Amino acid sequence: MQEKIKIAIIGASGYTGHELIRLLSRHNNVIIEKISSESHIGKNISDLYDDLEFDQELVSLEDIKKTKLDLVFFTTPNNIANQHAKDFLEKNISVIDFSADFRLKNNSDYQKYYGFTHKDEKLLESALYGLVEIKKNIISKLKKPFLIANPGCYTTAANLALAPIVSTNFFDKQSIIINAASGTSGAGRKFNEENTFVENFKAYNIAGKHRHTPEINMFLSELAKETIKVSFTPHLLPMFRGLQATIHINCKANFNYDEFYNYYQEFYKATNFVKVLDKGHLPETQNCYQNNLTYIGLDFDPDTNRLIICSCIDNLVKGAAGQAVQNMNLAFQFSETEALL
Amino acid sequence: MQEKIKIAIIGASGYTGHELIRLLSRHNNVIIEKISSESHIGKNISDLYDDLEFDQELVSLEDIKKTKLDLVFFTTPNNIANQHAKDFLEKNISVIDFSADFRLKNNSDYQKYYGFTHKDEKLLESALYGLVEIKKNIISKLKKPFLIANPGCYTTAANLALAPIVSTNFFDKQSIIINAASGTSGAGRKFNEENTFVENFKAYNIAGKHRHTPEINMFLSELAKETIKVSFTPHLLPMFRGLQATIHINCKANFNYDEFYNYYQEFYKATNFVKVLDKGHLPETQNCYQNNLTYIGLDFDPDTNRLIICSCIDNLVKGAAGQAVQNMNLAFQFSETEALL
Amino acid sequence: MQEKIKIAIIGASGYTGHELIRLLSRHNNVIIEKISSESHIGKNISDLYDDLEFDQELVSLEDIKKTKLDLVFFTTPNNIANQHAKDFLEKNISVIDFSADFRLKNNSDYQKYYGFTHKDEKLLESALYGLVEIKKNIISKLKKPFLIANPGCYTTAANLALAPIVSTNFFDKQSIIINAASGTSGAGRKFNEENTFVENFKAYNIAGKHRHTPEINMFLSELAKETIKVSFTPHLLPMFRGLQATIHINCKANFNYDEFYNYYQEFYKATNFVKVLDKGHLPETQNCYQNNLTYIGLDFDPDTNRLIICSCIDNLVKGAAGQAVQNMNLAFQFSETEALL
Amino acid sequence: MQEKIKIAIIGASGYTGHELIRLLSRHNNVIIEKISSESHIGKNISDLYDDLEFDQELVSLEDIKKTKLDLVFFTTPNNIANQHAKDFLEKNISVIDFSADFRLKNNSDYQKYYGFTHKDEKLLESALYGLVEIKKNIISKLKKPFLIANPGCYTTAANLALAPIVSTNFFDKQSIIINAASGTSGAGRKFNEENTFVENFKAYNIAGKHRHTPEINMFLSELAKETIKVSFTPHLLPMFRGLQATIHINCKANFNYDEFYNYYQEFYKATNFVKVLDKGHLPETQNCYQNNLTYIGLDFDPDTNRLIICSCIDNLVKGAAGQAVQNMNLAFQFSETEALL
Repeated sequence: MQEKIKIAIIGASGYTGHELIRLLSRHNNVIIEKISSESHIGKNISDLYDDLEFDQELVSLEDIKKTKLDLVFFTTPNNIANQHAKDFLEKNISVIDFSADFRLKNNSDYQKYYGFTHKDEKLLESALYGLVEIKKNIISKLKKPFLIANPGCYTTAANLALAPIVSTNFFDKQSIIINAASGTSGAGRKFNEENTFVENFKAYNIAGKHRHTPEINMFLSELAKETIKVSFTPHLLPMFRGLQATIHINCKANFNYDEFYNYYQEFYKATNFVKVLDKGHLPETQNCYQNNLTYIGLDFDPDTNRLIICSCIDNLVKGAAGQAVQNMNLAFQFSETEALL
Repeated sequence: MQEKIKIAIIGASGYTGHELIRLLSRHNNVIIEKISSESHIGKNISDLYDDLEFDQELVSLEDIKKTKLDLVFFTTPNNIANQHAKDFLEKNISVIDFSADFRLKNNSDYQKYYGFTHKDEKLLESALYGLVEIKKNIISKLKKPFLIANPGCYTTAANLALAPIVSTNFFDKQSIIINAASGTSGAGRKFNEENTFVENFKAYNIAGKHRHTPEINMFLSELAKETIKVSFTPHLLPMFRGLQATIHINCKANFNYDEFYNYYQEFYKATNFVKVLDKGHLPETQNCYQNNLTYIGLDFDPDTNRLIICSCIDNLVKGAAGQAVQNMNLAFQFSETEALL
Repeated sequence: MQEKIKIAIIGASGYTGHELIRLLSRHNNVIIEKISSESHIGKNISDLYDDLEFDQELVSLEDIKKTKLDLVFFTTPNNIANQHAKDFLEKNISVIDFSADFRLKNNSDYQKYYGFTHKDEKLLESALYGLVEIKKNIISKLKKPFLIANPGCYTTAANLALAPIVSTNFFDKQSIIINAASGTSGAGRKFNEENTFVENFKAYNIAGKHRHTPEINMFLSELAKETIKVSFTPHLLPMFRGLQATIHINCKANFNYDEFYNYYQEFYKATNFVKVLDKGHLPETQNCYQNNLTYIGLDFDPDTNRLIICSCIDNLVKGAAGQAVQNMNLAFQFSETEALL
Repeated sequence: MQEKIKIAIIGASGYTGHELIRLLSRHNNVIIEKISSESHIGKNISDLYDDLEFDQELVSLEDIKKTKLDLVFFTTPNNIANQHAKDFLEKNISVIDFSADFRLKNNSDYQKYYGFTHKDEKLLESALYGLVEIKKNIISKLKKPFLIANPGCYTTAANLALAPIVSTNFFDKQSIIINAASGTSGAGRKFNEENTFVENFKAYNIAGKHRHTPEINMFLSELAKETIKVSFTPHLLPMFRGLQATIHINCKANFNYDEFYNYYQEFYKATNFVKVLDKGHLPETQNCYQNNLTYIGLDFDPDTNRLIICSCIDNLVKGAAGQAVQNMNLAFQFSETEALL
């Protein structure tokens, strides 16, 4: 039997930290050594969440730094991992970061979208963007200590839907329009007053203002080997968990939908967590509730010659903690599905 | 003081019938003479809805036909008004139809999308498509008896948002992509089992399959004086009332957003029920709850050179009963806002 | 025509302030002179709420004090009106307070439940507890300047349901058990992080800990002319507006339900805003959405010899702003229903 | 390693059937041989539910009768298992019934609450009421073929909360008042039109009319060794899954809450699925979502001398499919938690 690895969670009191604890407490190859939360030091995690089997005192980030570990997860807001990841890597401790701090490769995007810049660009460059189904081969061969940037929630739903598309030549790749909608948990636990959100629906951060826009563009451009600029328009849903993306793209003349559908289904056939639905079926967020699956459905509109792709995930699982566990599983040569089924 | 008109509601037991009664029972120029429902003959409407001040027995459609009236509303499923409207018009009774039966001008679209055809094409031709803010001048000069086709809910939100756009030359009018989401009341009271819908979100009838697609195309094409084919993708929301549309359109080179925004705001300035929000504000469904307003917000994305427009209505009010009352108010020379504020 | 009165709203940026503006902006006898919000001085109310027709700059409480007025509404948190009401009353300006500051008569209850005490007990004594349907005669004869304590939301639903009961001798008045559930807007706009509440349901502040407990006890005891101690157990609902109470009470032997039902219905027959439903009907929160109605339904269980009463209100309207307007209407001899239908 | 048992599910197309398949498809000791649905014969279960890993064609009940099995689950409406259970038992096939058909012992209750009577009263008598935590010892010693009546959802939440109470002498056992609220999935997949339920809350079937009333009374009376008649008042919640019960009971004089709390916590200490929360904590439905747990919180109100107990379950898991699997696990000597963690 495989030896267990020792991990810590930094920023464990938020929604994604909670979700990560929920998953890892069933993981057979992991020992949760420490969990931290600067705002709840000394409290037990069970004081914040009644539903966890696992319990432990929340300590400080400094305490975590003194601990012997194989891996730390940052489930912190942006611009925290950026400041502390290096300290762990230097001690041979791998890092999986839930924030955006290491997702983008272009340092100037950090200034524009996040209001800070990376002083150590080499560190930024060394990070692997962990969209698992696409980067699987690289992840499973990573040398330790590694630094994985766990993808954003909207990004995961959009990029998994689009990965099989932008690597072909059947489409006008500048015509991608992504509408997406997320449950309120996407806004994190420190929910501000404007987000008390029931019986309501609205778009927000439209016209390229949402921070996941450069992340989507970066990933798709790399895959397409050309600069892609998408329209990305997020919406807020009156529910807690669940994220859906609807994508329109213009097809080139003589596009053959039936052939493309078969290719698309084949693309994800061997994966554990991406389900391409039969023709005529469309994904709904309910089916992803608390699991790590991505459901995808497609259809073709001959009147407008556009392909429409819909994808659904649980923003807290596949869009955060679940994908992080998947990244860990592959990078440590555990079973990919451990703790995720 | 103006004399009161006598009206009847055919199919009054559904959601839109209920909403119409709610509005008309406060209307100072209307007497509700009869209400019908084939499936609840003999019951009182208060047996079905506790919240109505107004009460009356539900009778049969045949009973309505024997009544002296100025106007009938059909709040029935499709393919009912189609069969009975003529009988009222011949007796000099005007008709406002909530269903799709007289919305489209192309008889073959009925075969394709609704599974029936109009035998009397002249009647179809005589119907006015009552998207009030755009057709106001025509509506207020209609001769009686008139036949008004009350627009669909998605159509109202989409077409009001797009009317100022397609009448200009700043856009690629073939690039219109409409994503919309509606509360479950849009599916009507005879909700089928698949639609028990809470904590869930999904697209449905995508790729041009939704019946509002030809209605949107017809209206926009007429306004633009060229054939427009939009992509229209509806979604179902876990709430009862409220409908939101997010629209993307490609701008021509050198598009001047500031000028266009001013023109857009001016377009609706004199209306009673369309509010174009200040820059930086976006509409949310909550603000339309149980009122007849349409809220619209816009933004421009310089990176993709696309304009994004968002609009919100209450699908049962502006998307059905409220707009019908507005149509009646104008056609009978009542105050446009009577019973709607 | 009646002259208009000049009013101001202190703390206008919260949910109940917003609701009050929404109602008063349609009121034919009221001029909103000023609105204040300490945390948003200088902003316009339309910056906070897109849906208001009315717009005005938010000023400070001190500014309000310098204004010539007939009436001020406090839509502030607890322990604000307490400190400032006197300043207005001394200038002959009447006060309607939405907070709990003048609801209770027993000063020691303030220490126990609210953590402050009234220094001026005479002022406290002078306040009228404005549960309109029960205190109508007193309200309409109040001398100006008056001080009205607008009842709490749970209290309104519970006490209106119980008023006809505790004034009879058919029940064991110590057996009253009130379970109630409210939408999240009851918690106010400054919603804290724990209250991000969708797809969830829970009891809170049980076992007499909720602050509305002494308010219910005080009112019922006064009416019953004996000390009544109820069990009051509130719950939080995954919706924005709406409040429901279910009440159980033990009947004395030989209780005649049919006679009692008739008496109960008669009790509220002449009111404008309390609807006692027909036997077999039960109220639901949806029917009170954005209106000032109280719906009540009853039933008797012969197996346990208990009466069960259910009541529903919109917590922001009948449970706050609507009832305040009703109080004003009566105290200023306006039509009771002005701005409320 | 233990041999696998062969099971079938009758009525698999409903919500509880779906939930049972979801659980059993991860069960290491079970082979799902057949699934039936009279209304969907010939379809695959994946045509109805996109989220199931497991797939199989839906057959007829007659087909199931021809199959070699160890156990059948009836996830059918009431009055089906009643007619067919015997046919399976006679072939040595055990039965777990989700409906109410074998829950009550008093045949006349079936006439009163369900409109049918059992012809074979011996069969009725032979059924075991499978409220697992209380009947564990009996279940694990059942002889095959056994007939287990799986408890109702409300009943499970109420009776688990009350079991430690009615077996003591600290309370007035005739003073039990149970308010409960359930998500809409409790009404089953064949949801009728009145139950389209969002943004709403209401009581229904009050005053002893709900069918779970005799079930609760029967169970508690047996445990208390005296006839208990509770007040049971159900409510409908605007969410899909989740059920909460709030219970009030009068304590006898000199009730010692601290001692009782310790006893209560001890009562469930050794169980796998009942969590008694620390003092000051109350259960919420969210924590039971899709799991088999029962959360219970208590508090004592010294002013009224009443104990208040709150409990939460997922109505489709602990309130149906999860408890059924627990029953099977114990009766077949599998691990109690197999497929349930």
